[in-house]
Amino acid sequence: MANEKKFVESITSRDEDFAEWYTDIVKEAKLCDYSSVKGCLNYLPNGYAIWENIQKDLDKRFKKTGVQNVYLPMLIPENLLQKEKDHIEGFAPEVAWVTQGGGETLEEKFCIRPTSETLFCDHWQKVVKSYRDLPLVWNQWNSVFRWEKTTRPFLRSREFLWQEGHTLHATKEEAEERTKMMFQVYKDFVQEDLAIPLVSGKKTESEKFAGAEDTYTIEALMHDGKALQSGTSHFFGNAFPDSFGIKYLDKENKLHSAYETSWGMSTRIIGAIIMVHGDDSGLVLPPRIAPTQTMIIPIAQHKEGVLEKAQELLERLQKKKIRTKLDDSDKTPGYKFSEQEMLGIPTRIEIGPKDIENNQAVIVRRDNKEKIIVKLEELEDTLENTLEQIQKDMFKKAKDFLEEHIYEAKDMEEMKKLAKEKIGFIKANWCGEKDCEAEIKAETEGFGSRCIDESAKVEGKCVHCEKDAKYKVFWGKSY
Amino acid sequence: MANEKKFVESITSRDEDFAEWYTDIVKEAKLCDYSSVKGCLNYLPNGYAIWENIQKDLDKRFKKTGVQNVYLPMLIPENLLQKEKDHIEGFAPEVAWVTQGGGETLEEKFCIRPTSETLFCDHWQKVVKSYRDLPLVWNQWNSVFRWEKTTRPFLRSREFLWQEGHTLHATKEEAEERTKMMFQVYKDFVQEDLAIPLVSGKKTESEKFAGAEDTYTIEALMHDGKALQSGTSHFFGNAFPDSFGIKYLDKENKLHSAYETSWGMSTRIIGAIIMVHGDDSGLVLPPRIAPTQTMIIPIAQHKEGVLEKAQELLERLQKKKIRTKLDDSDKTPGYKFSEQEMLGIPTRIEIGPKDIENNQAVIVRRDNKEKIIVKLEELEDTLENTLEQIQKDMFKKAKDFLEEHIYEAKDMEEMKKLAKEKIGFIKANWCGEKDCEAEIKAETEGFGSRCIDESAKVEGKCVHCEKDAKYKVFWGKSY
Repeated sequence: MANEKKFVESITSRDEDFAEWYTDIVKEAKLCDYSSVKGCLNYLPNGYAIWENIQKDLDKRFKKTGVQNVYLPMLIPENLLQKEKDHIEGFAPEVAWVTQGGGETLEEKFCIRPTSETLFCDHWQKVVKSYRDLPLVWNQWNSVFRWEKTTRPFLRSREFLWQEGHTLHATKEEAEERTKMMFQVYKDFVQEDLAIPLVSGKKTESEKFAGAEDTYTIEALMHDGKALQSGTSHFFGNAFPDSFGIKYLDKENKLHSAYETSWGMSTRIIGAIIMVHGDDSGLVLPPRIAPTQTMIIPIAQHKEGVLEKAQELLERLQKKKIRTKLDDSDKTPGYKFSEQEMLGIPTRIEIGPKDIENNQAVIVRRDNKEKIIVKLEELEDTLENTLEQIQKDMFKKAKDFLEEHIYEAKDMEEMKKLAKEKIGFIKANWCGEKDCEAEIKAETEGFGSRCIDESAKVEGKCVHCEKDAKYKVFWGKSY
Repeated sequence: MANEKKFVESITSRDEDFAEWYTDIVKEAKLCDYSSVKGCLNYLPNGYAIWENIQKDLDKRFKKTGVQNVYLPMLIPENLLQKEKDHIEGFAPEVAWVTQGGGETLEEKFCIRPTSETLFCDHWQKVVKSYRDLPLVWNQWNSVFRWEKTTRPFLRSREFLWQEGHTLHATKEEAEERTKMMFQVYKDFVQEDLAIPLVSGKKTESEKFAGAEDTYTIEALMHDGKALQSGTSHFFGNAFPDSFGIKYLDKENKLHSAYETSWGMSTRIIGAIIMVHGDDSGLVLPPRIAPTQTMIIPIAQHKEGVLEKAQELLERLQKKKIRTKLDDSDKTPGYKFSEQEMLGIPTRIEIGPKDIENNQAVIVRRDNKEKIIVKLEELEDTLENTLEQIQKDMFKKAKDFLEEHIYEAKDMEEMKKLAKEKIGFIKANWCGEKDCEAEIKAETEGFGSRCIDESAKVEGKCVHCEKDAKYKVFWGKSY
């Protein structure tokens, strides 16, 4: 049967060629593909379903902290984009411009939003008058557009899906607190729901967002040792609000500047899920985020009673809110196993005539391929526990990998050696000077500053120059 | 207190000036406002929360029928848009064109999608090979852009939010069945969840979607007697798939054309909710779709025990999954009542010292302002029943209004008289000729064909000419 080749045969081995392996998984699991629109993706059902679950879980976490969702336009008039100096410098080279509309050439062109700080500030300038109008804690789920030259599925594309939160506050303290709160929301979500351990902290001056005072980042370590920036939370101070003339009256009728934050997470995170958890059989999805948590695969399904029993189990599990599907197609069980593994479905349930005779089924874990024989009356409980255990074990495994790949360097010689021989992060002291930062990256062939380790006590000299160190920094190669 | 003017004083009476009333409600309930991007809206928290509930409910209905969500790019290359002749003719005048990107003038320009048939077909052409690949039943929640000249909140704006479903099938029968299935999903959703009764059926030839063979529409009657097209489902035959070269091999290895459908509902429907249910006190939201279903308003909240009791009720109702909020701000109860009414929250609960003494609370219905005194231990049950009753009563009231405003005309004289004196729909026979259709509209000053009444037996002559009637049509003015 032409269709019967095992999926695993169609993907490159992960350790042989990581980039090829990644591309193969995206393709074979039908997560997304390139569209005819250069640099843009089609997010296909299997990939989009993961994003829907991410949206659902993350949105719930946002709303618990008081976030309200909104939707602002996809276009930004040129004059608005130009209002904040650093911001326009950061984004102007990579925007797409609409210059014609309704059959006419426009007097003022519009860019497709690369991000929406300017639109939020423009709206707030009109509606914020008094302290009673603050805080505003808003978010939108949308797509943005940046004219990237090189693209990779989920990791970098011209149009991508994300959420962008934007908030406005009466005081600096409150805005800083919100910046850190959303940073924490991202950390909790990624670690708890996606089972991805993190290194996190502030970005250095040269790596922060265009126009921000502080950028907090979460960085995940991919299996090839490269870091992936997975979510950022920015404190803007009042630079943006001031550029837009946003002022509010306090209780004593005095005029004040307002303080702004923004924070975002995108479909990049799906790339992280693939590259942290995936293996040579395909995708491995953490149970909490998996669109399907278990696939029932009947064995010898033409035999009497097998499909009926499989159907019965399906209904029982769905009643327990376990996201379950039954594969009763005419493919062989072997093909079905391979497909379920490729798609990263966390468990499968095998049930055949012999199992029915013995009043049992077999649960097979996707993460470690362990088989668990279970009495049919205990199926729900055992499966629920197994899914929880998989979530924990996946996090543990990834955390061990992360910790094994954090090195520490005292001087440049050691740093260059580590950069050459190891993959992962290198922790090293830094003086805070841009030139040193750039030279460290150049001399290590790509180990840039990923974030500042704020928990570390900083003592001694910069790894590169003779000056006293101000920061302990995680250095790494990145996507 | 400056803030204490009642909301009701700030809105125009509905019967005095319907258009002004509508604009006032949108503004005072803070549903959306015009952004600095001409013709585009900011969907604000109160308006967007309604859309989120619509998405949740409608998406659940879609998925029950096997729909999978995807996301395709927002841009369409010019050559793709041109592949289907009727389609490009319909949309070319009203698109926005991207002509510059990444600092350069583009060789081929892109339009911002006005709808995505072309992108779906382009993708399908690449992936569909055999009958095994069909059907494809996809949907996306996104925004589209049409360069409208005149705009109104929710009803017509250059960018608007919607869902667009696109499906591809092996046979004509299956595609026709899907077209009707989604038409039915819209009917059920709008009537059951939004409490809006409908007139529905096929569009005439001249009113159908650019490129479609059949368009099914649901039409709601606004309080001013105008119809609002609220959702459409299109059968495309194989014109689109053929233009894109989509062919599939059947079981006997023979090559076939495929059949396509699409169907959409947009944020327009929020306009329908406002204009069907709203009154002079503001918005009236059906309980099923209301972001907040009940607002607890404490009376004399400074008195001992009042806020504690209100808080206790809040927790009890939230535990029952009733979407409840507590307004414990320092505004007066009168202001809070007025605000809750403006926002259309279906019920409020008044609780003061006297109520607590009597172990009771007062539920006030938004739709008819009826007060219900309830023992505290019966609060959950009574409130749940009340919310259900409101949903039913709102539908009944709107249905009575609709039925009272459907007239029937035998000839043009009667039709012109009705068009002049009445508001609503006029049912009348039609021969099926475009010229007659246009002349009927002209002679009645705007009563265009809204849809064909498919349940009606057609006998007699066309209302306009001497030919035999082919259809019974609902004629009406429309938004």
